[in-house]
Amino acid sequence: MALSETPVRRPTTNAQVVVFDESTGVSRRPDRVVTEEPLEIRVSGPNETPVPFAVTMRTPGNDFELAAGLCRSEGLVAGPDGLESIAYCLGGDGEQLYNVVTVQLRHPVAVRARERRFLANSSCGICGKAALDEVEQRGVAPAKGPTVGASTVLALPDTLAEHQRIFGQTGGLHAAARFSASGELLTVREDVGRHNALDKLIGNAFLEQRLPLSDDVLLVSGRLSFELVQKAAIGGIGVLCAVSAPSSLAVAAAEEFEQTIIGFVRDGRFNIYTRADRVDLAA
Amino acid sequence: MALSETPVRRPTTNAQVVVFDESTGVSRRPDRVVTEEPLEIRVSGPNETPVPFAVTMRTPGNDFELAAGLCRSEGLVAGPDGLESIAYCLGGDGEQLYNVVTVQLRHPVAVRARERRFLANSSCGICGKAALDEVEQRGVAPAKGPTVGASTVLALPDTLAEHQRIFGQTGGLHAAARFSASGELLTVREDVGRHNALDKLIGNAFLEQRLPLSDDVLLVSGRLSFELVQKAAIGGIGVLCAVSAPSSLAVAAAEEFEQTIIGFVRDGRFNIYTRADRVDLAA
Repeated sequence: MALSETPVRRPTTNAQVVVFDESTGVSRRPDRVVTEEPLEIRVSGPNETPVPFAVTMRTPGNDFELAAGLCRSEGLVAGPDGLESIAYCLGGDGEQLYNVVTVQLRHPVAVRARERRFLANSSCGICGKAALDEVEQRGVAPAKGPTVGASTVLALPDTLAEHQRIFGQTGGLHAAARFSASGELLTVREDVGRHNALDKLIGNAFLEQRLPLSDDVLLVSGRLSFELVQKAAIGGIGVLCAVSAPSSLAVAAAEEFEQTIIGFVRDGRFNIYTRADRVDLAA
Repeated sequence: MALSETPVRRPTTNAQVVVFDESTGVSRRPDRVVTEEPLEIRVSGPNETPVPFAVTMRTPGNDFELAAGLCRSEGLVAGPDGLESIAYCLGGDGEQLYNVVTVQLRHPVAVRARERRFLANSSCGICGKAALDEVEQRGVAPAKGPTVGASTVLALPDTLAEHQRIFGQTGGLHAAARFSASGELLTVREDVGRHNALDKLIGNAFLEQRLPLSDDVLLVSGRLSFELVQKAAIGGIGVLCAVSAPSSLAVAAAEEFEQTIIGFVRDGRFNIYTRADRVDLAA
């Protein structure tokens, strides 16, 4: 089979952060976040028009392996001799689209096109911008988060840890929690899937008629992906904290929706990626 | 709106583990893993037949909040007054199905039924067993993993850490790596999504005609979910190691496919959840 992958997109993206460290103070410095971009995988058999098969949010690199592995694990192809080619799509102007991969199989595929996760943008096929546009089309208003003190931010993970009931027993759960701007824990939800933990948290507020959560501060126990920022934006949350790292598209989404992203909240320090004006570094 | 949620399923599941600790030796003890089960969410408008809207692998508990939050973030409903009811489905015999939730909306919904992720089992609607059955129907053979020494297992995370290029820069990536049974690192792939990292790893072996990977040992940097065990089974991997915890359905899947699951490989110790005969505790 023919491969024509050319590595172009970089797996990391530059970011500018405000670093707060309780022992050394405040500094501004360049940083790197992991790149997150949608990849659309299309499949076709001989003389068939390619149909969208899957969209996954991924880090660019080894995209053909990702497409091949997914086709194998989803049962579309049994062996490598079932593959005719894997290639990036070409756009209308002949330009390669690095977020769309077409897998050509040697046998007819009766794949029903899956629902498109994002609207395709005619110039780029699918991309982070298209993902952001789609969220906007659901009527997300710019966030109006509260102002929160640096010492309040630093204390959030310990408060969450005290209330993570199931994690203590199994070590296997993600948590999402909302706090008041003064650091009072309001609701916590745990789940094996981090998106589920946030869906439960926002679903709880939705059922209790508390949306939008514009006065609250969100803390997630792991990393911040685009999907989590999107869900928080729909819930009206303006200040998002994470114990670990945000992705490039998480930061881009937060900029678009005017949310504050604070990452790596641990060991007496944190990084602010967007809208640092909502953090009172002297408090 | 009417809620009729009764908490039944437990968020943790009992497991029996073999603990290896380089300072205190080997012991057998009961443990708990986080419960992972599929939840199917169906939606309907007035006088409409409910259609499957989403399936998510989740930890039981707050299922109605999860359904409501997902419907809100996917734009199916704008406010809680758009909800008529949320309830568990009733099976043919009138029994409640705790893995199927129906959301009734007050307005017609033009939701196209999403592709069913798993075949429904007539007795339980959808459940872990149905998920396992579906993997089996893709022709997964029982794994034939190698035997690996305890000291080899203990050394895997450090070897991986030396080779995680992007993680060091961003702290935001999952990794999946395969090793020989003697602990030599063969391939490592990183991604913002852990399922992508494993798809890339298996896709690489698939394209290089190396499947099944029955001589190799897999290490993932985070937790082991059902989805990862399933992908490993399709790749023919018999020994799966994780730096963190496995879920209940990951353990059940590994039992079904005769795979060895080793969790919490860190700080000179690990837990074996299934097929401990493939670990040489004296080596």
